[in-house]
Amino acid sequence: MNAELTFRLANEQDLDEIVAMLADDVLGRTRERYEQPLPVTYLNAFQAISADANNELVVACLGEKVVGVQQITFAPYITHQGGWRATIEGVRTLSSERGKGIGTELIRWAIGRAKERGCHAVQLTTDKKREDALRFYEGLGFKATHEGMKLKL
Amino acid sequence: MNAELTFRLANEQDLDEIVAMLADDVLGRTRERYEQPLPVTYLNAFQAISADANNELVVACLGEKVVGVQQITFAPYITHQGGWRATIEGVRTLSSERGKGIGTELIRWAIGRAKERGCHAVQLTTDKKREDALRFYEGLGFKATHEGMKLKL
Repeated sequence: MNAELTFRLANEQDLDEIVAMLADDVLGRTRERYEQPLPVTYLNAFQAISADANNELVVACLGEKVVGVQQITFAPYITHQGGWRATIEGVRTLSSERGKGIGTELIRWAIGRAKERGCHAVQLTTDKKREDALRFYEGLGFKATHEGMKLKL
Repeated sequence: MNAELTFRLANEQDLDEIVAMLADDVLGRTRERYEQPLPVTYLNAFQAISADANNELVVACLGEKVVGVQQITFAPYITHQGGWRATIEGVRTLSSERGKGIGTELIRWAIGRAKERGCHAVQLTTDKKREDALRFYEGLGFKATHEGMKLKL
């Protein structure tokens, strides 16, 4: 399977499938709005991401079919001797394609991309309700050394 | 005290004092390098931050004196209906000025700035070793709903 899996930057035509994946999720269904037409806020975010050299919305494809998505943000931080870090967000695999290792390949791809960009670390936060996700990321070498704190405005 | 506290974007002349604050910290002293001349990586990061409209390195000043620092990164995310979020990093107060509420004012300022920028949430991660920091952020309304996971490259 993995031989056919390819990665590329998302384009605007992928947006419908991306939002469908985000909404088809135990937490996503409470906070996303997958409907036709798609809320314009998704297009606005897509355009802001595309215009920003430090943000990449990446899709995984099996042939032509979009089967996974993730967003990677690169940031220069003054801490850690002025090191760049990559933050991964919004990792999802198409529900019909789960269990095939696509999530693992997405994260491995993000790690490789972070190295290319000269980052000294990759980071992410995962909701404490997602116990499987915690184990998944630990299996890929991530350490849950930090509390991920959020304040809604 | 707070009447005199002002906030502004850091300039290059502040960099020495900023790195001194980052290094004067129980975790910072193991990973920063405060020496003369300052390692060029700090200047490189400062310039990358200054050139990026989505990154702000902010200092708190009492009169002319720099007494605190934080970095705020704004990012458009495709999740949460395409919402912008602010991430706070590297919050430090000058050790001789601790206990005066400067940290609280820094975070309140960041929250106000995030609202100005149209963010729907403010987030940060704090090392689980920093038990006081966890309580500090909880006192400001942050919820530790997520695991903050890191992978060093």
